[in-house]
Amino acid sequence: MSKGIAHYQVGETFDDFLLITSANKSIASNGKPFLALLLRDRTGEIDARLWGAKKEDETLFKKGVLVKVSGEISQFRNKPQLKIQHIRQALEEDGREVKQFVEEAPVSVEWLEDQIKEFMFEMTNANLQRLTRYFVKEYNEELFTYPAATRNHHNYVSGLAHHVVTMLRLAREIGGIYPEVNKDLLYAGIIVHDLGKIRELSDPDSPEYTIEGRLLGHISIMVEEIQHAASELHIEGEEVMALKHLVLSHHGKGEWGSPKPPYIREAEILHQIDMLDSRIQMMNTSLQKTKPGSFTERIYPLEQRSFYKPLFEME
Amino acid sequence: MSKGIAHYQVGETFDDFLLITSANKSIASNGKPFLALLLRDRTGEIDARLWGAKKEDETLFKKGVLVKVSGEISQFRNKPQLKIQHIRQALEEDGREVKQFVEEAPVSVEWLEDQIKEFMFEMTNANLQRLTRYFVKEYNEELFTYPAATRNHHNYVSGLAHHVVTMLRLAREIGGIYPEVNKDLLYAGIIVHDLGKIRELSDPDSPEYTIEGRLLGHISIMVEEIQHAASELHIEGEEVMALKHLVLSHHGKGEWGSPKPPYIREAEILHQIDMLDSRIQMMNTSLQKTKPGSFTERIYPLEQRSFYKPLFEME
Amino acid sequence: MSKGIAHYQVGETFDDFLLITSANKSIASNGKPFLALLLRDRTGEIDARLWGAKKEDETLFKKGVLVKVSGEISQFRNKPQLKIQHIRQALEEDGREVKQFVEEAPVSVEWLEDQIKEFMFEMTNANLQRLTRYFVKEYNEELFTYPAATRNHHNYVSGLAHHVVTMLRLAREIGGIYPEVNKDLLYAGIIVHDLGKIRELSDPDSPEYTIEGRLLGHISIMVEEIQHAASELHIEGEEVMALKHLVLSHHGKGEWGSPKPPYIREAEILHQIDMLDSRIQMMNTSLQKTKPGSFTERIYPLEQRSFYKPLFEME
Amino acid sequence: MSKGIAHYQVGETFDDFLLITSANKSIASNGKPFLALLLRDRTGEIDARLWGAKKEDETLFKKGVLVKVSGEISQFRNKPQLKIQHIRQALEEDGREVKQFVEEAPVSVEWLEDQIKEFMFEMTNANLQRLTRYFVKEYNEELFTYPAATRNHHNYVSGLAHHVVTMLRLAREIGGIYPEVNKDLLYAGIIVHDLGKIRELSDPDSPEYTIEGRLLGHISIMVEEIQHAASELHIEGEEVMALKHLVLSHHGKGEWGSPKPPYIREAEILHQIDMLDSRIQMMNTSLQKTKPGSFTERIYPLEQRSFYKPLFEME
Amino acid sequence: MSKGIAHYQVGETFDDFLLITSANKSIASNGKPFLALLLRDRTGEIDARLWGAKKEDETLFKKGVLVKVSGEISQFRNKPQLKIQHIRQALEEDGREVKQFVEEAPVSVEWLEDQIKEFMFEMTNANLQRLTRYFVKEYNEELFTYPAATRNHHNYVSGLAHHVVTMLRLAREIGGIYPEVNKDLLYAGIIVHDLGKIRELSDPDSPEYTIEGRLLGHISIMVEEIQHAASELHIEGEEVMALKHLVLSHHGKGEWGSPKPPYIREAEILHQIDMLDSRIQMMNTSLQKTKPGSFTERIYPLEQRSFYKPLFEME
Amino acid sequence: MSKGIAHYQVGETFDDFLLITSANKSIASNGKPFLALLLRDRTGEIDARLWGAKKEDETLFKKGVLVKVSGEISQFRNKPQLKIQHIRQALEEDGREVKQFVEEAPVSVEWLEDQIKEFMFEMTNANLQRLTRYFVKEYNEELFTYPAATRNHHNYVSGLAHHVVTMLRLAREIGGIYPEVNKDLLYAGIIVHDLGKIRELSDPDSPEYTIEGRLLGHISIMVEEIQHAASELHIEGEEVMALKHLVLSHHGKGEWGSPKPPYIREAEILHQIDMLDSRIQMMNTSLQKTKPGSFTERIYPLEQRSFYKPLFEME
Repeated sequence: MSKGIAHYQVGETFDDFLLITSANKSIASNGKPFLALLLRDRTGEIDARLWGAKKEDETLFKKGVLVKVSGEISQFRNKPQLKIQHIRQALEEDGREVKQFVEEAPVSVEWLEDQIKEFMFEMTNANLQRLTRYFVKEYNEELFTYPAATRNHHNYVSGLAHHVVTMLRLAREIGGIYPEVNKDLLYAGIIVHDLGKIRELSDPDSPEYTIEGRLLGHISIMVEEIQHAASELHIEGEEVMALKHLVLSHHGKGEWGSPKPPYIREAEILHQIDMLDSRIQMMNTSLQKTKPGSFTERIYPLEQRSFYKPLFEME
Repeated sequence: MSKGIAHYQVGETFDDFLLITSANKSIASNGKPFLALLLRDRTGEIDARLWGAKKEDETLFKKGVLVKVSGEISQFRNKPQLKIQHIRQALEEDGREVKQFVEEAPVSVEWLEDQIKEFMFEMTNANLQRLTRYFVKEYNEELFTYPAATRNHHNYVSGLAHHVVTMLRLAREIGGIYPEVNKDLLYAGIIVHDLGKIRELSDPDSPEYTIEGRLLGHISIMVEEIQHAASELHIEGEEVMALKHLVLSHHGKGEWGSPKPPYIREAEILHQIDMLDSRIQMMNTSLQKTKPGSFTERIYPLEQRSFYKPLFEME
Repeated sequence: MSKGIAHYQVGETFDDFLLITSANKSIASNGKPFLALLLRDRTGEIDARLWGAKKEDETLFKKGVLVKVSGEISQFRNKPQLKIQHIRQALEEDGREVKQFVEEAPVSVEWLEDQIKEFMFEMTNANLQRLTRYFVKEYNEELFTYPAATRNHHNYVSGLAHHVVTMLRLAREIGGIYPEVNKDLLYAGIIVHDLGKIRELSDPDSPEYTIEGRLLGHISIMVEEIQHAASELHIEGEEVMALKHLVLSHHGKGEWGSPKPPYIREAEILHQIDMLDSRIQMMNTSLQKTKPGSFTERIYPLEQRSFYKPLFEME
Repeated sequence: MSKGIAHYQVGETFDDFLLITSANKSIASNGKPFLALLLRDRTGEIDARLWGAKKEDETLFKKGVLVKVSGEISQFRNKPQLKIQHIRQALEEDGREVKQFVEEAPVSVEWLEDQIKEFMFEMTNANLQRLTRYFVKEYNEELFTYPAATRNHHNYVSGLAHHVVTMLRLAREIGGIYPEVNKDLLYAGIIVHDLGKIRELSDPDSPEYTIEGRLLGHISIMVEEIQHAASELHIEGEEVMALKHLVLSHHGKGEWGSPKPPYIREAEILHQIDMLDSRIQMMNTSLQKTKPGSFTERIYPLEQRSFYKPLFEME
Repeated sequence: MSKGIAHYQVGETFDDFLLITSANKSIASNGKPFLALLLRDRTGEIDARLWGAKKEDETLFKKGVLVKVSGEISQFRNKPQLKIQHIRQALEEDGREVKQFVEEAPVSVEWLEDQIKEFMFEMTNANLQRLTRYFVKEYNEELFTYPAATRNHHNYVSGLAHHVVTMLRLAREIGGIYPEVNKDLLYAGIIVHDLGKIRELSDPDSPEYTIEGRLLGHISIMVEEIQHAASELHIEGEEVMALKHLVLSHHGKGEWGSPKPPYIREAEILHQIDMLDSRIQMMNTSLQKTKPGSFTERIYPLEQRSFYKPLFEME
Repeated sequence: MSKGIAHYQVGETFDDFLLITSANKSIASNGKPFLALLLRDRTGEIDARLWGAKKEDETLFKKGVLVKVSGEISQFRNKPQLKIQHIRQALEEDGREVKQFVEEAPVSVEWLEDQIKEFMFEMTNANLQRLTRYFVKEYNEELFTYPAATRNHHNYVSGLAHHVVTMLRLAREIGGIYPEVNKDLLYAGIIVHDLGKIRELSDPDSPEYTIEGRLLGHISIMVEEIQHAASELHIEGEEVMALKHLVLSHHGKGEWGSPKPPYIREAEILHQIDMLDSRIQMMNTSLQKTKPGSFTERIYPLEQRSFYKPLFEME
């Protein structure tokens, strides 16, 4: 098996299996038609072009299909691109499965489930614990398959749960340092804050925004759901309002999509550690592909900055 | 009866009945205590100070109490202020009632009710009509007593309904000009867009923000309520989502409290005519108190501008 | 006759007459030369490329020429593009005229003229009426041929007058709701506010910015013209200054080109309904080309938003 | 004669003649009335309060009156304030004149006149020279009496001419360094750029904004005047448009009141040296009152900065 | 001993010892002089006014003096104020010491020293460890006495070390979650990032900005010092540059005083946890003084927000 | 010899020597490989493409190599591009030297050296003079070879010294007008303000940002160097701090890279004339290539404006 598409340099020849994650018929600026493919294995993605594609090629090479490809890695607009020489659908006898080509969280689903259970077990406020348990049960499958975002950070299978668990670990540490922080409220907020993405996005594997997602957004969707859950569970009291507020304000300010900024301590902390974890993830992903002594590509959500990897990281 | 507090000039002596709308014990920068009152009649409000107030005065002169006051109108920090010489509670034999001292919409409640009924009658989409009717019924009393805002514009009894009717009239004209506009959706959005204020504010007479109002805001409150109403009425279909979106986006952008900007034509129009009507109202209120050939005071929500009243307005 | 260029889908074959609205010799990134044409009929525009164009083609296929074209509709950078197979100049015997290919206001010039006359007739302030009449007479031809903008909204023959009349209708409604609004000043402001565009733009058919337009702008040009007209007509009094102010401030703020923000009530209203009408127009133009259940392309002057066309628009 | 009001320290006793530049009846937060005066001599201004002022005091102590005052210099809200013990109108036998109490440019009017003549003499483009000469003649008196601004910088008699001459000197140096700069256009622009202030402000001595000034602004006023002058002088050609553009754009951007940013090289230079000269003036005024080793008060138009006066300025 | 000044309500009478932290002669808006004192004990601060203060009072009641005070707690401009009835200097026989009246970190200096030693011990990169040790030794006394800021957060004795240790604990947790993070660089950056404040501020007890602090800022001061330390220790290599960069960029962006934004992963993390810890501290300080069911005062560095303390915090 | 590459029009044929300033292997959107060259002579630069380049071509045609090229000037994305027909390395017998192809300051190095000496001679403050002399000596070679920027302005050999001398001339004029300005401090600040670029950039001929330059920036680098120089020269006193501040603040505000805005008068002036000179330079460069009656290309650092060259510039 090859070393993984992420580790090929420009000029090298690739010859192995890949999964098609998107396929579009296109036309070059000189009028020549081609099939633009996005191909991936577990290590990463690459753009590819199949020149002179025929009608039947469009039927064969669609999103979700496993293919055997060979070609040269070239450079196009500062990004690597695979110029396809040969391509064919994977056959049964090749013995490949889609799930081998999909990126996963660097930890197991079981561990994530255990972690979340453990944190819920630490909670003592009955209202918050019941609300949290309701949602973990309701969305049990999605929580452990959805990514945390369509791109940028934690954009892999069970990325959502991975993001939640990392935030919970930071929250526990903060609670250790500052005992006045209400860990129950903070844990509950962390666990549910992004669950609205399950309705905002179409599906866990190649998620796209739904119409509801674009018109209402995951924040408003989730606030509604908390109200619904509270009614179902006959929970009253400020915990319901507080939890809605944590979800509502977790983007931090109006320009970023929160109709109210954080007005409760735990809401502010939730916003800060959400940002902290997603930023570390994005930097790690880019730095991993960067040699010591050089800069990463620009990372858009980090104000388009490039990050330097020091030489002393080498040893 | 006097000419109304709004029409007194600095230097004149006032002697008539007024309603206390707020009362606070305070202390001057030189250490002297006083009772700071906000007094009103149907024409407007004035700040007043009762120097050397005693313990029992605090009990007598509270929010909601009618009083007979005399004193001189002076100027303090560019605003008129009444320096109280005599003050006493109104007696039964004085024959005054609180409702005589409260500002009302310049049109009658009956007319507003008729208007809203008429516009609802024009609607043809059953889902939207039923949702709208649900809320007009549910909040019938509040809709015709609440102000549209705690201050700035339509801040008088039934100001909310008055604002809604004005917007509906503009919407009808726009519908006449542009037949492609969906009047049903636009009417429904106008009627419900600010109903969340009924939970955001404490009461119609001297409204203050509730805790729920500060933490969730009238927009999120109303989105929840639409979801609840749709469930109750067993309405499904995009009308529910579209109506939620109109409410959600009616402040126009994130900085102004909308988690999503308008993404439906009627949502954009709703936002525009909401702004148009509130702005005209604010200018009218200030210009009414201004002599031709001079400028109004600064109007804060209008980017702190002063407006000029031309001399040819005189005739 | 074909169904109109705006209604062709990618993959279809086009074969009909079109008008060339711009023509540029260009070179592809691979060095191959082509003629980039912008072609239109009454329903809309399409980009087209003539590959391998010769010297004489440049002479034949110029801006303003009617052509018969056939070719396939393909997709290039998210926009439809016509790949030309055959092209020839239209012959006399084809019986086509340029004016058949130019978009016009959806109402007749006569109706627009009548409307404007009627609104001027409603005015009672002699100074404002005379100033307005002066300009309608002076620019009678241009007012009913110029577009209101080079692109984005009302960018068709007599778009300027159409925009003015729509705004006048909204102004009349506002005047009905709020009698304190000075309709004379508002009508006068609406009629003249954009007349400076006649000097800012080169011509009504394929308008480009003039040097004077770029260096001074239509706002400053028109303020000068009002001063000139007032001298000619020996009009003095605040109406002249007020009308200048309405023109000066109609973009609303400094960042948008107004040296002063609106400081007169009618100036603020003028700005608001200018924005309202242009925004509705832009949304309508894009939504017309969009199927229910999907989003429009991004509309740049509307903060790059895409608008959703609900499914219940279908019936 | 005293050392000048600007040089008194808190705690010192003042006893000398001063000019009243504004007088307002006011009321303290404890209800006690006083007369708030702004008093000045050639060195600067001070706020003063006359406690327990009677009706007749309001008649005696008005803007423009010379008075003999004694009292103590105290500190109020971080600014010195004169607490008046005795005050009387100056008598004829006191032998004081208003002009002795008004700040003047640090250079003579004659020198300013000579300088401007000399610079005009250097000009070679006939159109620009004639336009400039027209305005210098038209506004000869005002140019040499008006301040350049109501406050902040060059806010003294003939401050306008002083500002113009300083800018001309910088322009000459720039022309020496960069021969491609069009000195004629730059000189003409500098001389006329602020002349609109003569109509924007009420009078040279205690200037206030006129209504026209607030609604149109000195920029639009002056553009009109250039058009008028060009007609009078029968000048055509791009010089007229270019000069208008220099005036129009001299505030640099929309937010600062220019409907167009500089689009001609000399317009950009004019904007830059206008800013440079006004900023140096403001810093000088504040630093003059500051001891080495300390910071000036905050200067508002300089982004509220305080400036440090180094110790080595001492020698 | 009393319950501590922070726990008094408006209307209560205070009678106990306090420390004067600032004293200024002032004058009320009605002209009456008073001595404005800021008084404190270990629980907090209160403004106080001594009306009718004499010359000798100014000598007796200065910054740093312990006094016995009695008086009533009143309300002035939304803040509590002590109206002094009696005041005298503390006598030897009263047995009070200044250090009993000064706020301290909620943890001991010894514990902070141990913690910092322990974290340094964890470091493995020799260059970074030596640089860090150099500064901890150099500034040993100041590190454990200076506050982290003059106000807002960690503004108490040894607040600087407390802030550092909290950040180190968060850094260790992050390092546990993300092994690719360079803990040595992050620890070193955390320990030295604010040491420049030692030169930026005058002294640990009542710190004011030095001239050097205002003109250069603690960031530039510290970058210089790292260069100096590296020369002294003969350390070369990218660690020096990286550490400078962490200090340089720790305010996150230009507007907040960093000449470069974070361009190294650990610099970004340092900035984020600096913000996280200071924000939690500020919220805690305000919430501590707030009753469940109500909002804190506005916290300026947190975008002027007020925070709600939920009722369920009560138990 | 040809007329210089800057003076060729699209459509003309070029055949002369040029210097390669950058060379990159690339691939067109249709997959065809080419060598992208940037070629220059003393008059300017042009992009060029060598289609079908072979392996050996990459070795022959590298940065720094002189070549003889022929080809046609075409237009690509609004910029001229040379389509190479023939290309060969220059031979010894061609008699060309690299330095003939590099742009230089329009004045001689000797004159620049004399000027700087003369200005230093005018200084009277010993500390500032010694510090300045130290750096002029230390960086004597680089000061007279480095550009002032990698692009935009003064981006030619000895552009740094040219920029400095122009600023010094403006400073002398300002000093003549305003005697209170400290010319010593201003001269010293001007001379050293950009010397940090020598370490920020790799080399004078084809400068690129160094890692240190990207992570620390020329401002922080230079502040360190002033500290170092002061230690070497045993200079103490506020001049050192003031000079650091001038360097630190010369970008004017945080967003532009200065950790402190100017807080000393001469720092503000330095910032203003730095901006003035660089802006004039950029406009001149673009206007030089523009015909009277037309606009320049957009100049990015000047807020993307295009500048108009008036027709009366023609004579």
